[in-house]
Amino acid sequence: MEKQVTIYDLARALNLSTATISRALDDSPLVKLRTREMIRAMAEKMGYRQNLIASNLRKQQSRTIGVLLHEVNSHFATSVLSGIEKITTKERYDILIAHSGEDGAREIANTRNLFNKRVDGLIVSLAMTTSSMDHFSPFFEQGIPVVFFDRIIKKMPCSKIVIDNLKAGYQATAHLLDQGYRRIAHITASLQRNVYEDRFKGYKKALADHRIPFVPELVETCSLNREDTLEALNKLLLQKPDAFFITNDFAAAVCMDALQQKGIRIPGDMGMIGFNNDILGSLISPKLSTIDYPGLLMGETAAQTLMEKIKTKKNGKAILESKNITIPSTLIIRESTGKKDRPGRSRKA
Amino acid sequence: MEKQVTIYDLARALNLSTATISRALDDSPLVKLRTREMIRAMAEKMGYRQNLIASNLRKQQSRTIGVLLHEVNSHFATSVLSGIEKITTKERYDILIAHSGEDGAREIANTRNLFNKRVDGLIVSLAMTTSSMDHFSPFFEQGIPVVFFDRIIKKMPCSKIVIDNLKAGYQATAHLLDQGYRRIAHITASLQRNVYEDRFKGYKKALADHRIPFVPELVETCSLNREDTLEALNKLLLQKPDAFFITNDFAAAVCMDALQQKGIRIPGDMGMIGFNNDILGSLISPKLSTIDYPGLLMGETAAQTLMEKIKTKKNGKAILESKNITIPSTLIIRESTGKKDRPGRSRKA
Repeated sequence: MEKQVTIYDLARALNLSTATISRALDDSPLVKLRTREMIRAMAEKMGYRQNLIASNLRKQQSRTIGVLLHEVNSHFATSVLSGIEKITTKERYDILIAHSGEDGAREIANTRNLFNKRVDGLIVSLAMTTSSMDHFSPFFEQGIPVVFFDRIIKKMPCSKIVIDNLKAGYQATAHLLDQGYRRIAHITASLQRNVYEDRFKGYKKALADHRIPFVPELVETCSLNREDTLEALNKLLLQKPDAFFITNDFAAAVCMDALQQKGIRIPGDMGMIGFNNDILGSLISPKLSTIDYPGLLMGETAAQTLMEKIKTKKNGKAILESKNITIPSTLIIRESTGKKDRPGRSRKA
Repeated sequence: MEKQVTIYDLARALNLSTATISRALDDSPLVKLRTREMIRAMAEKMGYRQNLIASNLRKQQSRTIGVLLHEVNSHFATSVLSGIEKITTKERYDILIAHSGEDGAREIANTRNLFNKRVDGLIVSLAMTTSSMDHFSPFFEQGIPVVFFDRIIKKMPCSKIVIDNLKAGYQATAHLLDQGYRRIAHITASLQRNVYEDRFKGYKKALADHRIPFVPELVETCSLNREDTLEALNKLLLQKPDAFFITNDFAAAVCMDALQQKGIRIPGDMGMIGFNNDILGSLISPKLSTIDYPGLLMGETAAQTLMEKIKTKKNGKAILESKNITIPSTLIIRESTGKKDRPGRSRKA
């Protein structure tokens, strides 16, 4: 490795004190703006690498926020990330992204890693298979702020940003009922996760309010990947449903494709509603009705809530109380939930 | 903040020397395995937070690899990440993910940030709007290994992992020609980026080999987002094409939807082929022909190449020569490229 350029080299080159160089690189207002700019230009020219690790160690903060995601491959995840980045860029914080790929064990490893990297705060959406919450204890014990979004644990002592999943599940189911469907099957994921538990409650409440008996055999939970979804679909078809409420647009698209291949007309023979408003839903045929879920706003809100907590803590004030924030969601009516027994255009010739 | 548990506290609690505690936490074979396990258990119990920053600072390595991605919202990006994670997990390295959202300015900021965080190496796929390569100079000057994948700059002095984009572009175009299409329009992105430049060269070569004149008006470049793609599509339709080769499955799906809404039958009236083999392509109707691109293998190869360079450097050996590695890609024939003038099933009733 080449010899590293130090602030001593910069001081010598510019004939300034090391204190001035150090202050300028920390963007201190004690150094005139023009001098700061000159020092920065020279630092760049000489290939100076700011020793942020040592500098942050001294200050006991890393100006870095950890983001633990359960997946990254969706419009929702990228929207959340954009929202978080919008806030952290403004506040001049860096983000470290770690993703669990829905695997609880990887989530635990990632959590430990971000803790050891001394992030100033953590934004989390839980993996599907996470069962214990013990891996977050070090954060709580050290008073490092944690904000959960989307996939949360209700009793955790920290702020949570969610949509009203019960209401959204209710709306999706009630819309199918209003369109004349009566035997509504439900494909969802682990009911341990709040989002799926609450949507399921909404489904049951809508049935009850419309005096339709709840049939446990019409509900299947799975990982929502392609293979598992198709297995759930085939099991449910034995129960002769006339509609599906599926808590994920990708899984709904997989089912729609399989049903159409069997010659079943959607809508008409079968109603179908998804969840998330992924772009996919507007590109398949018929276009998928769904629940819109504002990821950007959720990311912004999570980051803002976390930044408030970090700043309060930095100023030595008491930690802010935890907040539960509910972001609005919307029912999007497209083609796949057209009226029962009145098939719209079908993709078959 | 609570008082932090130190190795002194651990030493006292276990009646061992701080040197033993420190060695055990660094997983040194100088401490018996059973003793190491006992010390780790106690460290966990007492909430000891290993000062990795200080410890790595001492060792001048962070055991962290930076991954700079141009986007995360695709099957390809997640596959690459899985491939990288598979190797780094085995090697006990952490990953920091930063993504540019196709924005060159954000790529520059992310590069500087990862440099300042002292990553031991960098895996990069360039953003669409990156023009200068200056932001990578600090890495080259300090001898920190960088590996590019997918979106590369051919003359950069580092290893590159790519597919044969020229061959893939040739195959896609030749397949449309073999199916009887003759006026093939091409929607692609910035020809500054190798992947699009090479696919375009392949498109032209296939036309030349089939003695079809190249018509510059049949080629449009854009960001490949929904809005820009539709604008490019409408411009190209004035040129009366009979097929489209579009270098991204999402953009191809957007065009297919728009064309079908105009009553144009795909295939038959119009042939369509995409690129990337995104899951989307197998869920739309007709199913999209495309080029498969093995993201997992690309991620694994990039990480393996980087790890070799890091290890060679650590052992004080000369830096390995740069390697250019080409990963195989495959033409996937589905429904959207059926023979000209022989429409298959259409999604219209």
